[in-house]
Amino acid sequence: MISREHFIAAQQQAREYLIRAGIIITLEESANIEVADFGLNELESTGLELVVYVNTDRVCAKELVLFPRQTCPEHRHPPVDGEPGKEETFRCRWGEVYLYVPGEPALHPKGRAPKSREQTYTVWHEIILRAGDQYTLMPDTPHWFQAGDEGAVVSEFSTRSRDESDIFTDPQIQRVPKVAE
Amino acid sequence: MISREHFIAAQQQAREYLIRAGIIITLEESANIEVADFGLNELESTGLELVVYVNTDRVCAKELVLFPRQTCPEHRHPPVDGEPGKEETFRCRWGEVYLYVPGEPALHPKGRAPKSREQTYTVWHEIILRAGDQYTLMPDTPHWFQAGDEGAVVSEFSTRSRDESDIFTDPQIQRVPKVAE
Repeated sequence: MISREHFIAAQQQAREYLIRAGIIITLEESANIEVADFGLNELESTGLELVVYVNTDRVCAKELVLFPRQTCPEHRHPPVDGEPGKEETFRCRWGEVYLYVPGEPALHPKGRAPKSREQTYTVWHEIILRAGDQYTLMPDTPHWFQAGDEGAVVSEFSTRSRDESDIFTDPQIQRVPKVAE
Repeated sequence: MISREHFIAAQQQAREYLIRAGIIITLEESANIEVADFGLNELESTGLELVVYVNTDRVCAKELVLFPRQTCPEHRHPPVDGEPGKEETFRCRWGEVYLYVPGEPALHPKGRAPKSREQTYTVWHEIILRAGDQYTLMPDTPHWFQAGDEGAVVSEFSTRSRDESDIFTDPQIQRVPKVAE
């Protein structure tokens, strides 16, 4: 669990990235920026900042902010209640993102697995996304991604988000937003 | 049907609006900007410019460009093949948009129905969207929208787009992209 101070600082840093990317959010969205540390309390290496625009039964859209070299850890979106899992398109708006999916592993990947967690990163086929580039992931595909040295802002267009159903490769991860009171 | 010259000029104008909104697109997306005149050849008053990012069986994301006072005419998205119609969220990124849906009509609406087509605009409940504002439309809801005097850029997050299934109030409208060769 990250501290209140750390949470507030991460929200503020995320706001600065959104401004750099030219993305305008409302005061309410700004106050509610989600900071996900995936239960590891290692936000610099493993974490994600999110603005959720809409999440209905059918459609979800978000902005994701990644600080420099911050990593969204390996996971997949399995079928839920007889529906196929989440399908998602990542579109890079600012900075550079290294996205990893199943397939021929990169010989010299630009992304680096967070320290002491290397064994929980199993897919290494590399897709490099810069501003304007995008990639669509079909349901239940294992994937992870990391920002380059400048950080990144990424739009996500998807079917319904059910974070609680995501399956992470790292058994230590809990995808529940938690912050100290 | 609009002329080739008009089509090229509208694409170029749309590119300039996207730049103003800080939205980066690829060269391929830029070359393929869609210009919809809805078969009326009155692009200044009735029309829409689109960049389609993704449109799968489940999810669609687009940027819409509206020139000053340009109008996307009244229509709805009915159920297709036993699936509910298209659900869509409009998020204004730049400029100002007047969106009209069923409900209490605005006493002094900011939007104006295109000339000689007034009778095909039947819903007048007004939602004003400025940068950062958004509105979610449930399937089969009649709606239309118009940019303010500066034009607008709007992100659309939705279920699958099937333009050919849309039902327009104006019987003269054909939602098929056509341009003179």
